[in-house]
Amino acid sequence: MRQDSLRLGAFFYATGHHIAGWRHPSSEADGGLVLSRYVGWAQKAEAAKFDLLFLEDGSGIRDGNLRSSERTARSTHFEPVTLLSALAAVTSRIGLVATTSTTFNEPYNVARRFASLDHLSGGRAGWNLVTSATDAEAANFGDDTIARHADRYERAEEFVDVVLGLWNTWDDGAVIIDRESGQFSKPDGFRPLDHRGKHFTVRGPLNISRTPQGQPVVVQAGASGPGKDLAARTAEIVFTANQTLAEATEFYGDLKERMARFGRERDDLKVMPGLFPVVGRSEDEARAKFEDLQALIDPAVGLALLERMIGGFDLSGYDLDGPVPELPEANGIKSRQQLMFDLARREGLTLRQLYLRIAGARGHSQIVGTPAQIVDEMEERFHAHGADGFNIMPATLPGGLDDFIELVLPELRRRGLFRTEYEAHTLRGHLGSRPARPPGG
Amino acid sequence: MRQDSLRLGAFFYATGHHIAGWRHPSSEADGGLVLSRYVGWAQKAEAAKFDLLFLEDGSGIRDGNLRSSERTARSTHFEPVTLLSALAAVTSRIGLVATTSTTFNEPYNVARRFASLDHLSGGRAGWNLVTSATDAEAANFGDDTIARHADRYERAEEFVDVVLGLWNTWDDGAVIIDRESGQFSKPDGFRPLDHRGKHFTVRGPLNISRTPQGQPVVVQAGASGPGKDLAARTAEIVFTANQTLAEATEFYGDLKERMARFGRERDDLKVMPGLFPVVGRSEDEARAKFEDLQALIDPAVGLALLERMIGGFDLSGYDLDGPVPELPEANGIKSRQQLMFDLARREGLTLRQLYLRIAGARGHSQIVGTPAQIVDEMEERFHAHGADGFNIMPATLPGGLDDFIELVLPELRRRGLFRTEYEAHTLRGHLGSRPARPPGG
Repeated sequence: MRQDSLRLGAFFYATGHHIAGWRHPSSEADGGLVLSRYVGWAQKAEAAKFDLLFLEDGSGIRDGNLRSSERTARSTHFEPVTLLSALAAVTSRIGLVATTSTTFNEPYNVARRFASLDHLSGGRAGWNLVTSATDAEAANFGDDTIARHADRYERAEEFVDVVLGLWNTWDDGAVIIDRESGQFSKPDGFRPLDHRGKHFTVRGPLNISRTPQGQPVVVQAGASGPGKDLAARTAEIVFTANQTLAEATEFYGDLKERMARFGRERDDLKVMPGLFPVVGRSEDEARAKFEDLQALIDPAVGLALLERMIGGFDLSGYDLDGPVPELPEANGIKSRQQLMFDLARREGLTLRQLYLRIAGARGHSQIVGTPAQIVDEMEERFHAHGADGFNIMPATLPGGLDDFIELVLPELRRRGLFRTEYEAHTLRGHLGSRPARPPGG
Repeated sequence: MRQDSLRLGAFFYATGHHIAGWRHPSSEADGGLVLSRYVGWAQKAEAAKFDLLFLEDGSGIRDGNLRSSERTARSTHFEPVTLLSALAAVTSRIGLVATTSTTFNEPYNVARRFASLDHLSGGRAGWNLVTSATDAEAANFGDDTIARHADRYERAEEFVDVVLGLWNTWDDGAVIIDRESGQFSKPDGFRPLDHRGKHFTVRGPLNISRTPQGQPVVVQAGASGPGKDLAARTAEIVFTANQTLAEATEFYGDLKERMARFGRERDDLKVMPGLFPVVGRSEDEARAKFEDLQALIDPAVGLALLERMIGGFDLSGYDLDGPVPELPEANGIKSRQQLMFDLARREGLTLRQLYLRIAGARGHSQIVGTPAQIVDEMEERFHAHGADGFNIMPATLPGGLDDFIELVLPELRRRGLFRTEYEAHTLRGHLGSRPARPPGG
């Protein structure tokens, strides 16, 4: 039996994760662009002692079809680092994790922004590093098609080394502010990085000193081979999507094993699969809530979501009530595409059934049930070493978050699985892990 | 006599603009990295009804000599867009203007971040667009030396067109959130930009809808010919450094004249020179305050500042008490270099006298005196059409800001030159101008 308790992230995807959530009365449908909504949600999550709140991101509207985007809430939203900076000013303990792409940014800029967020928040920043996967995003940065998967990961590997290196260009305690002597920072307290690589040449030092956490927490979500190696080497949190317990424990074991190759301890990386819960006081109540949401799905929007999840292929020529077709391997989100095919095969789903199946959880675990049923599954996965915690994906915001806090958290706490108070002031403190230092760091 | 009143910016440069300000007891010397300090300063400026607060930026530590940087407060500071995002959550009326370079960023990312800040702040965002000018910054982005001045401006011209274009990819009122029909935004309410230029190919649309101000306010500070043309075409505020009244009126007239070429009205651009005031109840008190600060300047730090201001030339071989040497034209901040040479020539300054002269104002107007003396100069420049307002540069923070608010503002208000209450809720509302629309926008 594990002696630790589990970690919880609040994954905010305004106006909730269910693709039709914005049409449901339990969502604040303007939440993607109204700061006060996010402030309310963040303060609720903090009062509930979540480890962190997490924001995903894209470098453009990722649906190929703009007309179906008009029928979703996701075509317009805050840029996540600016949003979390605002939330840093009105929260005090919860971790703040934002996604930023390594594909369309410069490492010096990314290192600065997350260091700045770590200072602004007093040590609560995390960077979810991703590679961008869609042609729609590439087209906003001068390319007709997205770079190949292997090339994106090669760039990401070097990118994260530069960022980690820059965060280390200032010593701990270098800022001394000695008014008498006129020495603001210690002699030789910061120095160049002098990185020269294939993709980047970066002198440094960073123009912001070592952060309250030493360095922001690195988060990763890739599940391909290169993605897992990158995570095993550099990440302190991995967000992942696993359907079955067997898949989850295999992924977990594989990832933790890879860490040894990079000289890291298993406990210094927390695996937190996404979890899409729909909670009711009874099973019937939960199911009714879910069906209410499912009934609001526009078929064109559901199909567009599925097209994006399988790698941007056009499905309009296929029978919605026929089987999921055989398609070539995507260059985009490989692991997500595989997840879709596995899910369809395992459950024998038609195209329509598949998009209905992913309209909330997008391939993450989906549990529709009572608090006890939801906590049973969480506990099983946690004790079987399939997860160190979960990234909770409310179907609607704030409705789904309220349900989780009011119904599921008490059951988690009753079983001793989740904290009742924060013990630390930083994100890394909540996680109880040590930073993944860069080579030589 | 002008019938309008003047605009005031609070230019925050932690820990105040005087290079030795951090050593003075009237500064909060840790202000560059402690959010609560900035919150205090911003809320003071808002209570005093400033139009905006302004943050400059660099993409690296710009001093060539890291050892002299250790003796300044400026080697470590928040990244300005993240900082203003945090301040957006704890202020409600004051404009928020941050600097971001066009040299080391992608227009899609910049357009997003400022649109996000405009939404976060309810319509108070401004983007001060600059080109980066130092080799030290270039070295953080893969180049040994900074691009040539003309090339940087060519890129900046196209960059701003892309950003303005992206801000226009969403119609006003496009977001309708019709839960019943499932239409989140209006049919055809957003569309691609399809920009194809020399430096950028950007499809769009932006993944954030039209902002509360329609578009964030564009701010410019370049004073070279290409800089003035860019400002006349696109800017709504120009920050500038002028020493004499004659220089100020010439610059002002030239800039406003250039606007006609781009079909714009003179009033839609506000010229706001920097102003470094040191205020005392008597002239003697003001002078004593200033001398206290000057006495804290470390010669190595003063010389390093001067080296940077004249374009990165090494001055270590020259006699500090000899004349300012003849130097070739800088590729960097051309107009700043010229300002230094003109100042030295006009006032007959040695190298040492020159660095002492710029240690506070860095080439901007510097007035050490009583409230009446300071307001006399402001009023004269305003009425002579040498300025539409001023960007106030406190010597120390919060001390210099407190002095300006307590001593100078009452005198400005007594003469009817500055508001007593906000009349608007947006930055553009405070300015009373119309946006510079992009070609075809």
